[in-house]
Amino acid sequence: MTAASADEPENESEPEPGTVRPGGRTARVRTAVLRVAGDVLAEQGFAHLDLADVARRAGVGKTTVYRRWGSVTGLVADLLGDMAEQSLPRTETGSVLGDLRANAALVCRTLADPRQGALFRAVIAAAACDARTAEALRRFYEVRVAEWAPCVEQGVARGELPVGTDAGEVVRAVSAPLYYALLTSGVVPDEDAGERAAAAAVVAARGGVFVA
Amino acid sequence: MTAASADEPENESEPEPGTVRPGGRTARVRTAVLRVAGDVLAEQGFAHLDLADVARRAGVGKTTVYRRWGSVTGLVADLLGDMAEQSLPRTETGSVLGDLRANAALVCRTLADPRQGALFRAVIAAAACDARTAEALRRFYEVRVAEWAPCVEQGVARGELPVGTDAGEVVRAVSAPLYYALLTSGVVPDEDAGERAAAAAVVAARGGVFVA
Repeated sequence: MTAASADEPENESEPEPGTVRPGGRTARVRTAVLRVAGDVLAEQGFAHLDLADVARRAGVGKTTVYRRWGSVTGLVADLLGDMAEQSLPRTETGSVLGDLRANAALVCRTLADPRQGALFRAVIAAAACDARTAEALRRFYEVRVAEWAPCVEQGVARGELPVGTDAGEVVRAVSAPLYYALLTSGVVPDEDAGERAAAAAVVAARGGVFVA
Repeated sequence: MTAASADEPENESEPEPGTVRPGGRTARVRTAVLRVAGDVLAEQGFAHLDLADVARRAGVGKTTVYRRWGSVTGLVADLLGDMAEQSLPRTETGSVLGDLRANAALVCRTLADPRQGALFRAVIAAAACDARTAEALRRFYEVRVAEWAPCVEQGVARGELPVGTDAGEVVRAVSAPLYYALLTSGVVPDEDAGERAAAAAVVAARGGVFVA
């Protein structure tokens, strides 16, 4: 883990001209803090997230962390925003089934990854009892669905799926069984589950189930 | 809420012969305690569940509650066991689509109910960070899936679905999009979402997606 140095000045209102690398101090502090926040969420859960502890582990001044993120929920909201920005672009294979299999494989890899899987479970759990986290989580999935929706729209344009198919519904249908198995039964989705999720969504979409 | 009287004797190891109505004191204590536990989970979440507080609100001796449930996770596990026992039997309509629409409607009603919906969200959140709750939750869904699986098996026997269809997978496919929308985006499933979930599962099953 790359920690921002604790003895750099805390004044980050405006970086001095000419001294800032791409990324700069503000970006380095954010990277370090969000990395630690993600680690704590994945390892211990939302209840153990504490701004002073995050500052210490990230090697960043406590004042900086309080001033910038304000609260634990503010920090989690920023983490989710960063995860949406950093997440992978969609795959284009030339067929809607191929594209959605790639989407399912990405979801499976994410949920099966020890850190990422635990992080998602922690944030989803936190969203159940915290409105700000719930809103940040909703926006995260909105961004991800919007990223993959063109795969479905192209499938409609190519005549693979009926006109009027709700692209967002199809993309969500791919993720749903993978998340459901993990959250309700602790079943980490494997490659077969991903294939089945993509196939089920495409067969149902072809059948017109998702025509709005 | 019916509270068990706090001044009844706490010795409940064996009810005296002839003095026990169906239900008896032990059953009444359990009903009162589980009712309060469910209320606390739905209103405040897992983090606020406390055995002494539950005992007080249920009007039951603290010693009884500690002796019988031992811990908060023991109490939640028993609550989930009770929810599985109390939950409604499957519906038989004569077609797999009709049966699974009834299943989807039941899931939607449960998740849309303010107390039940909040209770499920709280328990699913708790399962993300507590192994005993996770195991109790897994068993709860196992019982529910086993209750509804015969609808799919009858559909196979009637020739509506291909031989070899995994009944559990089809039943889980109905619930998945309804839970996914609630847990990741806070969307309470409505009647349309239920119809779509049942239709998608049946169309995919007819297409052979769930043949093991």
